[in-house]
Amino acid sequence: MSELMESRARKLGLPPGTLVHLGSDNTDPVKLSIIDYSSTQFEERHSVSVDECLPFKDRPSITWINVDGLHQLEIIEKLGKAFNLHPLTLEDIVSTSQRPKIEELDSYLFIVVKMVRQIPGENDPRVEQVSMVVGSNFVLSFQEAVGDVFDPIRDRLRNSKGRIRENGADYLAYCLIDMLVDHYYVVLETLGDRIEEMEDEVINNPSPQAIAEIHDMRRELILLRKSIWPLREVIAAMARIESDLISETTRLYMRDVYDHAVQVVETIEAFRDIVSGMLEMYLTTISNKTNEVMKILTIMATIFIPLTFIAGVYGLNFQHMPELHWKWGYALAWAAMLSVAGVMIAYFRRKKWL
Amino acid sequence: MSELMESRARKLGLPPGTLVHLGSDNTDPVKLSIIDYSSTQFEERHSVSVDECLPFKDRPSITWINVDGLHQLEIIEKLGKAFNLHPLTLEDIVSTSQRPKIEELDSYLFIVVKMVRQIPGENDPRVEQVSMVVGSNFVLSFQEAVGDVFDPIRDRLRNSKGRIRENGADYLAYCLIDMLVDHYYVVLETLGDRIEEMEDEVINNPSPQAIAEIHDMRRELILLRKSIWPLREVIAAMARIESDLISETTRLYMRDVYDHAVQVVETIEAFRDIVSGMLEMYLTTISNKTNEVMKILTIMATIFIPLTFIAGVYGLNFQHMPELHWKWGYALAWAAMLSVAGVMIAYFRRKKWL
Amino acid sequence: MSELMESRARKLGLPPGTLVHLGSDNTDPVKLSIIDYSSTQFEERHSVSVDECLPFKDRPSITWINVDGLHQLEIIEKLGKAFNLHPLTLEDIVSTSQRPKIEELDSYLFIVVKMVRQIPGENDPRVEQVSMVVGSNFVLSFQEAVGDVFDPIRDRLRNSKGRIRENGADYLAYCLIDMLVDHYYVVLETLGDRIEEMEDEVINNPSPQAIAEIHDMRRELILLRKSIWPLREVIAAMARIESDLISETTRLYMRDVYDHAVQVVETIEAFRDIVSGMLEMYLTTISNKTNEVMKILTIMATIFIPLTFIAGVYGLNFQHMPELHWKWGYALAWAAMLSVAGVMIAYFRRKKWL
Amino acid sequence: MSELMESRARKLGLPPGTLVHLGSDNTDPVKLSIIDYSSTQFEERHSVSVDECLPFKDRPSITWINVDGLHQLEIIEKLGKAFNLHPLTLEDIVSTSQRPKIEELDSYLFIVVKMVRQIPGENDPRVEQVSMVVGSNFVLSFQEAVGDVFDPIRDRLRNSKGRIRENGADYLAYCLIDMLVDHYYVVLETLGDRIEEMEDEVINNPSPQAIAEIHDMRRELILLRKSIWPLREVIAAMARIESDLISETTRLYMRDVYDHAVQVVETIEAFRDIVSGMLEMYLTTISNKTNEVMKILTIMATIFIPLTFIAGVYGLNFQHMPELHWKWGYALAWAAMLSVAGVMIAYFRRKKWL
Amino acid sequence: MSELMESRARKLGLPPGTLVHLGSDNTDPVKLSIIDYSSTQFEERHSVSVDECLPFKDRPSITWINVDGLHQLEIIEKLGKAFNLHPLTLEDIVSTSQRPKIEELDSYLFIVVKMVRQIPGENDPRVEQVSMVVGSNFVLSFQEAVGDVFDPIRDRLRNSKGRIRENGADYLAYCLIDMLVDHYYVVLETLGDRIEEMEDEVINNPSPQAIAEIHDMRRELILLRKSIWPLREVIAAMARIESDLISETTRLYMRDVYDHAVQVVETIEAFRDIVSGMLEMYLTTISNKTNEVMKILTIMATIFIPLTFIAGVYGLNFQHMPELHWKWGYALAWAAMLSVAGVMIAYFRRKKWL
Repeated sequence: MSELMESRARKLGLPPGTLVHLGSDNTDPVKLSIIDYSSTQFEERHSVSVDECLPFKDRPSITWINVDGLHQLEIIEKLGKAFNLHPLTLEDIVSTSQRPKIEELDSYLFIVVKMVRQIPGENDPRVEQVSMVVGSNFVLSFQEAVGDVFDPIRDRLRNSKGRIRENGADYLAYCLIDMLVDHYYVVLETLGDRIEEMEDEVINNPSPQAIAEIHDMRRELILLRKSIWPLREVIAAMARIESDLISETTRLYMRDVYDHAVQVVETIEAFRDIVSGMLEMYLTTISNKTNEVMKILTIMATIFIPLTFIAGVYGLNFQHMPELHWKWGYALAWAAMLSVAGVMIAYFRRKKWL
Repeated sequence: MSELMESRARKLGLPPGTLVHLGSDNTDPVKLSIIDYSSTQFEERHSVSVDECLPFKDRPSITWINVDGLHQLEIIEKLGKAFNLHPLTLEDIVSTSQRPKIEELDSYLFIVVKMVRQIPGENDPRVEQVSMVVGSNFVLSFQEAVGDVFDPIRDRLRNSKGRIRENGADYLAYCLIDMLVDHYYVVLETLGDRIEEMEDEVINNPSPQAIAEIHDMRRELILLRKSIWPLREVIAAMARIESDLISETTRLYMRDVYDHAVQVVETIEAFRDIVSGMLEMYLTTISNKTNEVMKILTIMATIFIPLTFIAGVYGLNFQHMPELHWKWGYALAWAAMLSVAGVMIAYFRRKKWL
Repeated sequence: MSELMESRARKLGLPPGTLVHLGSDNTDPVKLSIIDYSSTQFEERHSVSVDECLPFKDRPSITWINVDGLHQLEIIEKLGKAFNLHPLTLEDIVSTSQRPKIEELDSYLFIVVKMVRQIPGENDPRVEQVSMVVGSNFVLSFQEAVGDVFDPIRDRLRNSKGRIRENGADYLAYCLIDMLVDHYYVVLETLGDRIEEMEDEVINNPSPQAIAEIHDMRRELILLRKSIWPLREVIAAMARIESDLISETTRLYMRDVYDHAVQVVETIEAFRDIVSGMLEMYLTTISNKTNEVMKILTIMATIFIPLTFIAGVYGLNFQHMPELHWKWGYALAWAAMLSVAGVMIAYFRRKKWL
Repeated sequence: MSELMESRARKLGLPPGTLVHLGSDNTDPVKLSIIDYSSTQFEERHSVSVDECLPFKDRPSITWINVDGLHQLEIIEKLGKAFNLHPLTLEDIVSTSQRPKIEELDSYLFIVVKMVRQIPGENDPRVEQVSMVVGSNFVLSFQEAVGDVFDPIRDRLRNSKGRIRENGADYLAYCLIDMLVDHYYVVLETLGDRIEEMEDEVINNPSPQAIAEIHDMRRELILLRKSIWPLREVIAAMARIESDLISETTRLYMRDVYDHAVQVVETIEAFRDIVSGMLEMYLTTISNKTNEVMKILTIMATIFIPLTFIAGVYGLNFQHMPELHWKWGYALAWAAMLSVAGVMIAYFRRKKWL
Repeated sequence: MSELMESRARKLGLPPGTLVHLGSDNTDPVKLSIIDYSSTQFEERHSVSVDECLPFKDRPSITWINVDGLHQLEIIEKLGKAFNLHPLTLEDIVSTSQRPKIEELDSYLFIVVKMVRQIPGENDPRVEQVSMVVGSNFVLSFQEAVGDVFDPIRDRLRNSKGRIRENGADYLAYCLIDMLVDHYYVVLETLGDRIEEMEDEVINNPSPQAIAEIHDMRRELILLRKSIWPLREVIAAMARIESDLISETTRLYMRDVYDHAVQVVETIEAFRDIVSGMLEMYLTTISNKTNEVMKILTIMATIFIPLTFIAGVYGLNFQHMPELHWKWGYALAWAAMLSVAGVMIAYFRRKKWL
């Protein structure tokens, strides 16, 4: 989220279906891991090669192949060939600036979503693309880098917690998406806390830095919204799609995630409303302060300017100035000055400036 | 409504359908109460156990089981098992940050709505989640804590006022929702009064605190709108749903509540428009005041600065200053100063500053 | 329109269908009047009782019963029973804060609209609820108080002007709604005139009071829009509804009124755009004026501050100040002061401030 | 376009279908002209009477009757009777504040559109209502006054340019509408030029008059949009309507005009966005200027105020002031003053104010 | 993009279907080039005449005829006649201010899109109209001038890279549109970079020029959006259209481009949000700076004004001023002045201004 747009320049002019990895550079080796399970059996392997994956394809059990890293195109291509993926699917998997979407192809569903994580110690949430291929008995998931939010699901598969091992590949896909959406809530909570801190700051102690912070928050919400908004449609489509790949049970669960996704989007909208109100509040507070400063200046200047004038008059060097020779001249000058000051103060009192 | 978002962190990573109470902590015991009625018979019991509820399920009479408190999950689970509730339904009941929604399941309708109450002595309205399960001859209602807005309905059931005892469970559900919507009006009236007070304050005496108040009101309206907006869809769905559980008569009544819900949402929108206009008005008022302050300063400074200059000139200590020896020098200096002041005052008069 | 919301508190907790008059208090007696007509016959009676109305119900001629005042619930109830009105219909008739709507019931259409009138001598338009029950050969109209905009229709019925006596009850209902919409135009014209006056004022002579006026106008437009917006749907529904109660001819006329209602709503939107632009213009004008004031202050201060400083220097009392003893010292001081002033004036000239 | 709303007061209370001319007063005689043509024949007559028009009605050739002026109601009525026009059609023709619309009646289409022309020498575009009645072999067009944009079409008919003489009445109607839409482009070009001039002015030399100009432009765009927005629907309806009166060929042409109408509306929206950005830019420019003015004042005041104070101190008249008797006292005072000034100037340099 | 609207005045009044070139003047000769290919054969010719094109029309291979320059109408007309193009199609091809659109005609699809290119060295992207006629075995493309973004496609055709030579004319059209959309990304990247630079500038060093830059960027985004917005519909229509001209395979690819087009539009919207936030941020920053300037002035003036007054008092020339004769008078005056200054500084410290 550090840049407004990811570059697509490298891809320009290549034929559709050409694999070009469009994402941050990554020199770690691509990691494949397999989890294969049924209600009675469980097998897990890490750092496997593509060839080791192939035998799982024809087993009746459910196979989840997770790929961490998209920069070794030959691996993606080999996997694509093995699972009969359409060239456009492969192209979309490796270009990480895709808009979230769902596509129904002959033998599988292709889903692109965004994983948003709050990494402890980082200020802004990290956004990563996750693509999924959901077949009748397999799920392929593709991530940009090692590290994700799916560990609880792996635990549930290992320990056979919940219904997960008794259901099909569609239910696994649902679990993955559900987990992603739950993490949006975590990110929103962090943002909500920051917004509340900023509100306090703007009201009590509006520093010039606050403007930049408000603008940052606003921009982050705009970009987050752009990531999450299409997700609603994806999930809605998944609950509605007429495909044998999605069972009735899973559809019901998808409707539940859909409600959560809608809530996330509505929360972002509410945050945007609040943040945009904050800038107006800031501007008004500053105007108020300027008004206060002006009042102090005006009070001081308006009281002392006439006094200084009076002092100036009796500092004149004219030879013929009768007042200068009066016995009580000096006292009278003080009296004049004090009464002018008194009148001014009374005037500001009545104006409620003092 | 004190925080922008309720935490969902406790739930993260648990399988769907796992019961985790997501809401404010509550140490009061959960309270169940039963009202069982038909047109000819009425029975009411308080603080019953789940087992005492079960026999009512198979009676032909209508049974309303109300649960106050969601933190004793075993009670919710037991009740869920007895009434054949889907695991997702139970999960939604106990997580109190649900978006209002209606779901049609095999043997019941599941409805989530928000109860908004103006507690006397509290500034902001209190928002609480109410879930309802509407079966063919029963209604289960789940609330976060003891205390609700349904007492008039209990009275009507006891005293057999209105048509309520002659109608089915769907009519009871309608009555509950109708009562919730009526309380939105109460909350809106309170907000409307506060808005009118704020308008008076902003026009007549705009204090710096007013900005924070306006921002608060704005934020409250944003959050209230987020609670109420989806309610429209819920009620519309209930009037439209093709389910045997909703009779034709009740549908007609639901259309009536729907109109009220729409009116509530439109009123919130109108309030938001008015409040957002108020901040602009405030800013303009402040600009006006700054302009006034500046005018006073400018008038004072502009009149006295030339006078002080003249006084300075004749306070010079040059040896050869013929004017100082003139007999009428001092009087002429006064004359010069007074005419400069007169010209200035005339100028400000013409500018309509005085 | 003096308050943001009408109170519904009195109704809270009563069973649906209970008649409670929700509106301004009114101690005048409720007035019923009957007009019964066909193409060949006309009869008109004022201040009749409910019982006198009943015989008209079964006549083949068209009967228009108008009720002025909603606070004597027994009259409304009796009439409701006589004409077989649904309890919800009666409830809606007497609660005057209904949203405009149309409902199709078994034997009649129920229509709620708002009558907006510009009472001469009053500043804001008066809004009143008008409910209509349209049956096959009767129209019942219910108003909050004596006094309406329907006199021209009564005249046309008396004098058999236009097609009105040859058409059915639906055509009468159309005429009533058409008259209401025509009066919206009158109100909009008055508002349009006030907006143009305010525009002139803001441009030529922006007084602090203008802000409050702009805010008032804005608020009035928000509330007016809230009254009129749903009217579009009502009229559209009436032109589209599949009911024997509305003839093809009347449908054509309803489409015409629909166009007018849309135009009214679009005009309100245009007015809101213009008024909201006016506040920005006001703010900009004030900023401009502050800038002007600041320039005058700066010009005066910047010219005289150096001069006063020079005068201060040669007012020093040091014993050894050679300049003070020069013959042309005084003249040179004046020369220095005048050239400083000249430079400053030239600078401001180049900046186009003078 | 000089007023926000045209008055409809004269019409209030009259039965629907009553002809009342609602438009600017006009004392010129109403002018009728006839053009009758087929692919082989052409006839044109000016200033004809209604009776002269009638024989053309039954000819197989296409007849275009144009009426300039709507204030002689008897002419409109006579024509209406001759061509079997519905009373509502006649009523809409003579009330010139109609919203653009299309209506399908038994034997003809009734179309209301707005003609917007840029009259050379006038600042604002002139808006006039044009109504058209399109029958199987005739087009009636009604305009408010003499003078229109249709001369090129008359020329094409006379000279048989293009396909116009080989097509039916629907094609003629299309040509008229196409011409109207083309003139919207002309008006938009003029507005676009004025907007560009205003942008230059606001950036380079923001005068107070510019605010009024921006507001004017904004208002004009609001009103223009209100005139043109419904036109889209009219043209879309005309391309879609299931009527024998519109041939397939003409439908294709109507789709082309539809694209132009959409483009006009989008251009108006873009202009509104730009103009509303301009006011913000103006406000920001003014704030910038005020900031500049303030800086100059602050620099001058801040440099000279301490100097004047030092000069004041050594102008004291105390008897015992050792500095006054120092030989280098005066020179030291100057040194002090110059160094204070130097420090101040350095400070402002570092702040980048100088 | 240098002007808000292209002129259409030259076209005014001509019959529909008349060819008038509406675009920038161009004196280069119109250039035609042909690429004819099948999976087994490839032929390319440049600067051909229309007559040379004709034989290709009846070959079974796919023919792509590209026309650079629209100002030689006789060439366009001849080509139109040869390929049976509708007069409206020809008219739309030569008027370069068309709104992007797709039209299905008898034997071909007509598509109008905008080519947006970032020319190195130019600040604003260049917008050019590209029209395409897609038949069963040919694609005609029309551009305003020499120079386009299609060279990579030509290369792929020459080298038979990708699937392009094995697919039909519809696939070629898809490739052209895909390339155009990919170039939108390039333009957006450039704009995104400029926006980020502007953000830095506004936060760190808000110069008056920045306002004009922000306004320029805003205007560019408004105009760009106007060009690209309708493209979505065009591509969606192309994926949906029921025409034999588009194969199932190409439809799938079009859905992919559609996602990209939606992403482009959403990015423009996000940019507009960010840019419009930037102006508010700028205004707030300026207000902040004015506030800072005011504080400095107020601090200086408020500290020295009383001191200068005290100095003025003891510069009085009264004969009877006892203080002047005190031995410690001068020292006491300094003490008074220093303590006033101290009090003032303490006051500003407490206000956190220092």
